[in-house]
Amino acid sequence: MRTIRLVVAYDGAGFAGWQRQQNALAVQQTLEMALHRLTGDPVTLHAASRTDAGVHALGQVCVFHTASPIPGERFALAVNALLPSTVSVQASCEVAQGYLPRHNIAAKQYRYLWYTSRMPNPFWQTRAWQTPFLLDACLMQQAAGDILGSHDFAAFMAAGGTVKTTVRSIHYASVKRQGSLVAFNVVGNGFLYNMVRILAGTLFEIGQGRREPEMAKILAEKRRVEAGVTAPPQGLYLVQCWDEPFAADSLDSIVLFP
Amino acid sequence: MRTIRLVVAYDGAGFAGWQRQQNALAVQQTLEMALHRLTGDPVTLHAASRTDAGVHALGQVCVFHTASPIPGERFALAVNALLPSTVSVQASCEVAQGYLPRHNIAAKQYRYLWYTSRMPNPFWQTRAWQTPFLLDACLMQQAAGDILGSHDFAAFMAAGGTVKTTVRSIHYASVKRQGSLVAFNVVGNGFLYNMVRILAGTLFEIGQGRREPEMAKILAEKRRVEAGVTAPPQGLYLVQCWDEPFAADSLDSIVLFP
Repeated sequence: MRTIRLVVAYDGAGFAGWQRQQNALAVQQTLEMALHRLTGDPVTLHAASRTDAGVHALGQVCVFHTASPIPGERFALAVNALLPSTVSVQASCEVAQGYLPRHNIAAKQYRYLWYTSRMPNPFWQTRAWQTPFLLDACLMQQAAGDILGSHDFAAFMAAGGTVKTTVRSIHYASVKRQGSLVAFNVVGNGFLYNMVRILAGTLFEIGQGRREPEMAKILAEKRRVEAGVTAPPQGLYLVQCWDEPFAADSLDSIVLFP
Repeated sequence: MRTIRLVVAYDGAGFAGWQRQQNALAVQQTLEMALHRLTGDPVTLHAASRTDAGVHALGQVCVFHTASPIPGERFALAVNALLPSTVSVQASCEVAQGYLPRHNIAAKQYRYLWYTSRMPNPFWQTRAWQTPFLLDACLMQQAAGDILGSHDFAAFMAAGGTVKTTVRSIHYASVKRQGSLVAFNVVGNGFLYNMVRILAGTLFEIGQGRREPEMAKILAEKRRVEAGVTAPPQGLYLVQCWDEPFAADSLDSIVLFP
C-alpha cells in the first residue's frame, strides 16, 4: 500500500468540522467519499488537526493509504473533479510509509480574523468574528508577544481536552490590522483543544481595553477561568502545516492576511 | 412622505438578483420586507442598478418613501437587525423629495474579479471567476485603456437591452493583479445591460493571449459578435455610486481590491 499526503483547503461554513460524524456532514467523509470514487476502494483519512464545525482550512494536511497506481501528484486534480466547490485539494504527493500527520507535522500556523465595523459586512459573516468595536491591534500585539516560547497553556485549554502535557512552544505570534480586518497569526509545535480560540477571545478583550495585556499573568495562573471567552469558530483558519521543525527561514512563508 | 437613501451591501450568491421576482428570492424584496417590519407600512425600493442573479454589491444605492419618524441615519442600524446576514445596510440618510437613484446617480464603479490558480479555492467559488489560466494583467490593462472616454458601446450590450443611446462615458478603467486575484475596475456615467460582464469576458480572452488587445476595433465595429463571452455573474461587484459627476478628486475614493 502507498501513502498519499494531501494539502486541503475548505470553507468550514457548511461543515460539521473535519471529523466524520453520524448525523452531519464533515469534511473528512466528503473527501473520503470522493477518494473512494476515484480509487474504487474505501479510504480512511488521518489529518493533522480535527478542526471544529465552522472552522476553515487553507492548508490542512491529511494522508490515506491506497493500492491505486495514480501518480502521487495527480491525486489533487483528479479528486477535485469529484469534490463540492467548498473543498479543494491544493497539492498531493506520495510519502514514506508510516508518515502520519499527527506525529510528523512539526509546526502549524493558525489565523484568527476579526472584521471591525459598525455595520456588518455580508462577505465576512461566516469568515471572521464581526464586531463593532474598533480593536486596538497594538495592545493585542503587545499581549501576543507574551506567548512566544515554551509555556504551560493550561489556562487556554477547553474542558474535556485529554493530553499528557499542556506545555506547548509558540514560534511566532502577531496581531496586525489591515483596513477593517484584524488578524492574529500564530505558529506553534502544537495546540491544545480550543487553544487558539481562547487566545483570540482573550486578545479580543484586551483589544477592547476591557482587560490589561496580561497574558503572562494568565499563563502563570494556569486556570481556564482567568483567560477570556472562547472566540467563535468562523474566525479561525488552519493556514499551513510544516513537516520540519519551524526554523527562522520558515518565517518567510507565513502569510498574515487572506 | 420622506425620502430615505440607503447604501446596501449584499452577497449575491443566495439571491435571484436585485429585482423582485415571483418565484425566487431577490435582494429587493428581502430589504422591502425588513423595512415593512420596521416602519409598519408597505415599502417599494428604487435602486441605482438592477444587478443580475449572483452579482454582488458593496455600495448599491436605493431609496424608499416613508411617513416613519425614524431619523434618516438611524434606518441603517435598525433595519440591519431585521435582515439576514447576507444583506447589510451600510449607511442611510434623508434626501430631497424627488431624488431617484436611476436619475440622480451620476457615476458608478463596478469591479470584476478573477481568481487565477491551477487549483480552485473554496473561498472564491461564488465571489470570482476562477480560472487556471495565468492572465496577463499588463495586456488587459493596455486594452482597458481603450475604453476611456465617450464611446458607442453597442458591441458590449447583451441582446434585449432597450436604451435610447448606446453611448456611455468611462471615467476610469484599470486591470491590476494582487497575488492570485486579477481585478478589472471601471467607473462610468452609466452601463448597458451586461456591459461590464462582456467587457470582462473580452479582457479575459485578451489576458489569455487568445485575442489581441483590440478594444478600439471592437468598439468601432459596434457588433456584439465581435466582443468576447459574457463573464459569469459571480465575479461582478457593484462597488459604489456617486451623486455628483465623477471628478478628478473622486479618484481617491476608488478601491481596487476587496
